[in-house]
Amino acid sequence: MGLIVAKFGGSSVADATSILRVAKRVVDAKKAGNEVVVVVSAMGDTTDELLDLAQQVSPNPPGRELDMLLTAGERISMAVLAMAISDLGVEARSYTGSQAGLITDSTHGKARIIDVSPSRIQEALDQGAIPIVAGFQGVSLDTKDITTLGRGGSDTTAVALAAALNADVCEIYTDVDGIFSADPRIAPKARQVPRITYDEMMELAAAGAKVLHLRCVEYAKRFNVPLHVRSSFSDKEGTFVIADLDDQSKIENLSTLGVVMEQPIIAGVAHDLSDAKVTVIAVPDKPGTAAAIFQAVADAGINMDMIVQNVSSHGTAKTDVTFTVPRADVGKAESSLRAVQNEIGFEDIEADENIAKISLVGAGMRSHPGVSATFFKAIADAGVNVEMISTSEIRISVVTRADDAQTTVQAVHTAFGLDADGEAVVYAGTGR
Amino acid sequence: MGLIVAKFGGSSVADATSILRVAKRVVDAKKAGNEVVVVVSAMGDTTDELLDLAQQVSPNPPGRELDMLLTAGERISMAVLAMAISDLGVEARSYTGSQAGLITDSTHGKARIIDVSPSRIQEALDQGAIPIVAGFQGVSLDTKDITTLGRGGSDTTAVALAAALNADVCEIYTDVDGIFSADPRIAPKARQVPRITYDEMMELAAAGAKVLHLRCVEYAKRFNVPLHVRSSFSDKEGTFVIADLDDQSKIENLSTLGVVMEQPIIAGVAHDLSDAKVTVIAVPDKPGTAAAIFQAVADAGINMDMIVQNVSSHGTAKTDVTFTVPRADVGKAESSLRAVQNEIGFEDIEADENIAKISLVGAGMRSHPGVSATFFKAIADAGVNVEMISTSEIRISVVTRADDAQTTVQAVHTAFGLDADGEAVVYAGTGR
Repeated sequence: MGLIVAKFGGSSVADATSILRVAKRVVDAKKAGNEVVVVVSAMGDTTDELLDLAQQVSPNPPGRELDMLLTAGERISMAVLAMAISDLGVEARSYTGSQAGLITDSTHGKARIIDVSPSRIQEALDQGAIPIVAGFQGVSLDTKDITTLGRGGSDTTAVALAAALNADVCEIYTDVDGIFSADPRIAPKARQVPRITYDEMMELAAAGAKVLHLRCVEYAKRFNVPLHVRSSFSDKEGTFVIADLDDQSKIENLSTLGVVMEQPIIAGVAHDLSDAKVTVIAVPDKPGTAAAIFQAVADAGINMDMIVQNVSSHGTAKTDVTFTVPRADVGKAESSLRAVQNEIGFEDIEADENIAKISLVGAGMRSHPGVSATFFKAIADAGVNVEMISTSEIRISVVTRADDAQTTVQAVHTAFGLDADGEAVVYAGTGR
Repeated sequence: MGLIVAKFGGSSVADATSILRVAKRVVDAKKAGNEVVVVVSAMGDTTDELLDLAQQVSPNPPGRELDMLLTAGERISMAVLAMAISDLGVEARSYTGSQAGLITDSTHGKARIIDVSPSRIQEALDQGAIPIVAGFQGVSLDTKDITTLGRGGSDTTAVALAAALNADVCEIYTDVDGIFSADPRIAPKARQVPRITYDEMMELAAAGAKVLHLRCVEYAKRFNVPLHVRSSFSDKEGTFVIADLDDQSKIENLSTLGVVMEQPIIAGVAHDLSDAKVTVIAVPDKPGTAAAIFQAVADAGINMDMIVQNVSSHGTAKTDVTFTVPRADVGKAESSLRAVQNEIGFEDIEADENIAKISLVGAGMRSHPGVSATFFKAIADAGVNVEMISTSEIRISVVTRADDAQTTVQAVHTAFGLDADGEAVVYAGTGR
């Protein structure tokens, strides 16, 4: 009995059959006494098909027109879903991002939301109708042109609407049951996490977990919107993403499983196979050279992730600088560095695409010493060599050979008692 | 050297190859020194595919949602065309009907245009860009919901924009070379008509000619917008549709063929195989009964076209009333009449679906007696029986057996010297 914003991704509305299933679920939620606002992505492969069509007429289409084209995808899915819901006897009205008041800046392809004015959505709710809103899209305040929000955009639309409407929960329907303690495809014993904090979820998303996009979780944290990640193919409760697992008040009414009694130390293990490692060899070890390297890469528009500077090893006053970048950007990173090679005075560049990043995330790390020791012991016992290390307050990441990713994830997952079948390890006095 | 509104139908933008061809044509027109506004329909079969998708989730979808769905079609074609034009180095910007200022009433599926405020289109022109406007769609003044204009809607969008922008010509690009003196599929000697008046074109459209929709021509006549119907597959001049063939001033600058010296008597021969004939038998021949019959049919939402009341033949005081209706409405017409059969007191109803309507259209009929005589002699000489007759100031229509349609069209076409190979008949002192 509350206001639910429910977002359905492309796989949940892939075809007419899926749309009919979603329609029934939405109507059931409404009939159970809730107010429901639906946000939809484009159906299945629609976006890819539209991109393919664009490529056939222009190798590098203008962003304004690409946004106009891609927004046709949600227009189709939202109208068809509204029809399916109406056919079940409940009024539904579809709204474009612009009609729903999603006001953005003018950065086509990755616009940022600058205001949400959902007066038409509120009006539809007040009249007892179910508003269906196109995800991923908005309208530029300055140019009045149609914009898209980029990756994870539909989730962000849902969270932004939930915040503006002061919804009780934002449900993210997807094709998995929720957030898992690791990717079940490489860690078969991974189990579903019932609760996770915004901070943990952000670290997991940044570390390669695919279910939620970092930006959506940041938005949810900023406006304290409880997220419920769940499957559109079952009625099972999924994973709640909330501010603080100790403050259960936000989710008490939302959860059918009851509250969780104790906060787990570890939320999960993430892996990422999409990065490459670049090593700049024999860099003069003097102030300013590392900065010059990072500036050259940043000027090329490339995000560096982990950075390690080795101790001098090439005789005196020489060091190696290693960092990771998205694999697709390796060539660009190399050429941007070659352009300043003489100026900086390093010897060579080596790129290595066969790496994996494995990350352990858990808010409990803050207060529980010994997590690192268990983590590195597990990796060592599995015979895996660690090539780089980086940490945050609630995350430890290592780089290994790509071939070692699965072994490493499974070893760490087991070591922290996360395996679904095994007994939970009691660690530092707190177990699960 | 003027302002051209160019509309491209679905067959002209059926795939990426077609869109690239249209892009080149538009850019050529721009480079020749014209200002160009483009109106596009949805690509090829897109509309049918979207309707099919709607049918899969709802047998009778709400009009608001059907309009939202179908307008995705032009959104795709306009964005892709804008990309293709941009790729040729000329800036193009796509606009939805709403963005282009096409303001309509709220009648979903067949909205009427109530205002056109193309300020963004004018702004794009002023900045040297080519605006690409979605045909067929608008936005409701009252509800702010998206609407569609119904059949012939994209042509109407183009004419409405041409009127609002005071364009020199509205070019309607299609998959045929222009307006023909008859349908070339059943009259192989049909020839392209270089000029035709709005009135003639409206009569032809109402009589079954498919190239232009009646409503678009009415709009063009009201605002005196010259139409140029031509093929998107060739550079040949097509057919100009204008107010008065004697006043050539409007088209002198538009035509490469020069002006036409004499106005032809006959514009063309149209046929229509989509009607059926309904006969109400033995109707009491007293005041008010015919009105009661027509009222019953009108109340069922059915448009009657030709109406004939025979002389009394069933003894005294009985007559037959015959009219034509769209074939799809025959069942509804019959049941609406059965409901009042006792009240009116007629004996029976006969429906006949095997009819054709053949129409001769020409503004010259007004001033040239003898057209009817030539028309009926040609039909009689061809051995075809005429079942119904109706006339307007510039049109004669007959109903024949459906099987006789081709014979009749060809006979009439030949009799009036319209055949492409044959010599033009000199008639009443005026020939072609």
